[in-house]
Amino acid sequence: MHPISTHADAVALAERLLACPSITPATGPVFDELEAMLRPLGFAVDRFLAGEAPDGPVENLLAWRTTGPGPHFAFAGHLDVVPPGAGWTSDPFAPEIRGELLYGRGAVDMKGAIAAFVAALAQLPDDLPGTISLIITGDEEGPAVHGTLALMERMAAHGLRPDLCLVGEPTSTARLGDVIKIGRRGSVNMWISVPGTQGHVAYPHLADNPIPRLVRILSAIDAEVLDEGTDWFQPSNIEITDITVGNPATNVIPAEASARISIRFNDRHSGAALVERITAIAAAERGTVMAKISGEPFLTEPGALSELVRGAIRDVAGVEAELSTTGGTSDARFLSRLCPVVEFGLNNATMHKLDEAVALTDLRDLAAIYGLVVQRALAN
Amino acid sequence: MHPISTHADAVALAERLLACPSITPATGPVFDELEAMLRPLGFAVDRFLAGEAPDGPVENLLAWRTTGPGPHFAFAGHLDVVPPGAGWTSDPFAPEIRGELLYGRGAVDMKGAIAAFVAALAQLPDDLPGTISLIITGDEEGPAVHGTLALMERMAAHGLRPDLCLVGEPTSTARLGDVIKIGRRGSVNMWISVPGTQGHVAYPHLADNPIPRLVRILSAIDAEVLDEGTDWFQPSNIEITDITVGNPATNVIPAEASARISIRFNDRHSGAALVERITAIAAAERGTVMAKISGEPFLTEPGALSELVRGAIRDVAGVEAELSTTGGTSDARFLSRLCPVVEFGLNNATMHKLDEAVALTDLRDLAAIYGLVVQRALAN
Ligand SMILES: [Zn+2]
Ligand SMILES: [Zn+2]
Repeated sequence: MHPISTHADAVALAERLLACPSITPATGPVFDELEAMLRPLGFAVDRFLAGEAPDGPVENLLAWRTTGPGPHFAFAGHLDVVPPGAGWTSDPFAPEIRGELLYGRGAVDMKGAIAAFVAALAQLPDDLPGTISLIITGDEEGPAVHGTLALMERMAAHGLRPDLCLVGEPTSTARLGDVIKIGRRGSVNMWISVPGTQGHVAYPHLADNPIPRLVRILSAIDAEVLDEGTDWFQPSNIEITDITVGNPATNVIPAEASARISIRFNDRHSGAALVERITAIAAAERGTVMAKISGEPFLTEPGALSELVRGAIRDVAGVEAELSTTGGTSDARFLSRLCPVVEFGLNNATMHKLDEAVALTDLRDLAAIYGLVVQRALAN
Repeated sequence: MHPISTHADAVALAERLLACPSITPATGPVFDELEAMLRPLGFAVDRFLAGEAPDGPVENLLAWRTTGPGPHFAFAGHLDVVPPGAGWTSDPFAPEIRGELLYGRGAVDMKGAIAAFVAALAQLPDDLPGTISLIITGDEEGPAVHGTLALMERMAAHGLRPDLCLVGEPTSTARLGDVIKIGRRGSVNMWISVPGTQGHVAYPHLADNPIPRLVRILSAIDAEVLDEGTDWFQPSNIEITDITVGNPATNVIPAEASARISIRFNDRHSGAALVERITAIAAAERGTVMAKISGEPFLTEPGALSELVRGAIRDVAGVEAELSTTGGTSDARFLSRLCPVVEFGLNNATMHKLDEAVALTDLRDLAAIYGLVVQRALAN
């Protein structure tokens, strides 16, 4: 259906990337491979290190090619992978094709998608004016503090600002193309501490047990309804993920009790407002709160970009993609500050698992879909 | 006021007992000393080991003397002591008199009282018919499984059953004689486990968080009012002493949550009934309960025995003793199955602390009080 040269075969390109171990944070060889793929296609490549310990340094790669005045379309993704774990059938960093599948850590999350970016670009008609860029970090699976954020600063320094962006995270679930993500919930963790006064259970009037107060705080938090969901988001959700007292003595009233909660929230809320809300609940029982906001929510309202991707999926794979905002956070939360962003990529069934694998046909179809997306984006 | 021979001086006797290290469980030398004190006074002495690991073996001593038909009065106590800890001014097992105080681990809890038992018996008129016994264990501060309980079996085997019993635990608080204990609350610890299904916080519908259910159980437990107290007991009390989840991952819903509670309860309740009550509360949220009942409550209704002790205190020390049921558990909970029991002993200010010490006058006054108690008990 799509005649391809060997240099533009997504499977062959994916094998090259998968052969470079790149447990997060990724460095060196895997970036060398990608650079070697992009330079022949006429891309300028800027590789740089960002950040310092403990969250850095992180290796990043920014590539761009301008062929004339026109829209700027960006592909974004990451070359780092989560640790493979023990028990793989074959070496996780020695890609192997068995039957119709290509195995290797990162096959779907997301070296496969990056190979598909390159294959798509290699097949592109060369008379399309506009700018195409690749925003590729070595740290998405880790702290992600010096990855995509640093790439965005670097782009600005080069005077580059995309009009549309596609992040190649594995969003497909049952078959390639069935799900596109147009938003993600925000995420915040909070640690609640309640102080008390230690004492003996036989003399409770001399002590001040912090546990009943923590229980009241957690009851109140559990009773909170943040919202009922929106057109595009499921309801925001609070989970109590841990409680710690750590009192080994059966006859002792402990001096402190603490808990941890995790909130995934939609665009009705901001991380800061939620921290304020939980802090007020805790304060009523003399509890204090520490918070870490991992990401604010984002939403790219359904429109031109999502329809562009849906159309390409339909034309290549004959699938009607559903628009979704479920799941964890991704670097799209940062890129959405610049322009409309959608996420679309391979089937995520084996991501972060043993024997991570991608169907060879999915890889090639994804390259064809990405190709149509860029072509139509620049043509607009 | 009470002329005493050297052999009957409670201070000298206490020094001999304090010089024998006897961190719980007590064995050997400290029992040898006590036996050497009692044999010259005409007591039969039966020493024996009871139990096996992990709660045994435990050394116990039963002594008795029958001088004719009449009531059987028993003294009860323990020769084991809690570990001294670091930081004593003098060696905790080298008794030392400084000023008006005798220092040593066990001075008040309760080798001092046992010395006072012996001093009282040494001064007793020898024409009193009746039976006097001493029920002395080497394990009251430890598991207490093979101590006083084993002594009670041993007494039964010898055909001995007391009519009245005084336990020499340190019950005095501000001054010698101000408090007699006529009962103790019962004690039970329970471990509540709530199972769940682990999962990712971004996909809560695929998980089952046990924490909100545990929080509801603990809220319900905290709202329980067991009783309002009785004429002789303060209200029964529930303390939540620990909560354990142990989930290090901020984005994971844990698979299990558990808590521990401690209930001190009066004679309106039994341990078993409380276990049943908490089990029902936990079951409503699919929680399960494991329980350990450390002691049932007991009460010796104010009457002949308590008045006997109050009278002796009044006559020796000029103090009006208050009847109390506060504090932790003691071996009186076992002995109360046999006969009326009261607890009365030294000032407990330094018990279980560094530089545990007893006033020399208190030791001698206590011996005089104990002497009057036995004398009047046998005379009745
Ligand atoms: Zn990824
Ligand atoms: Zn004691």
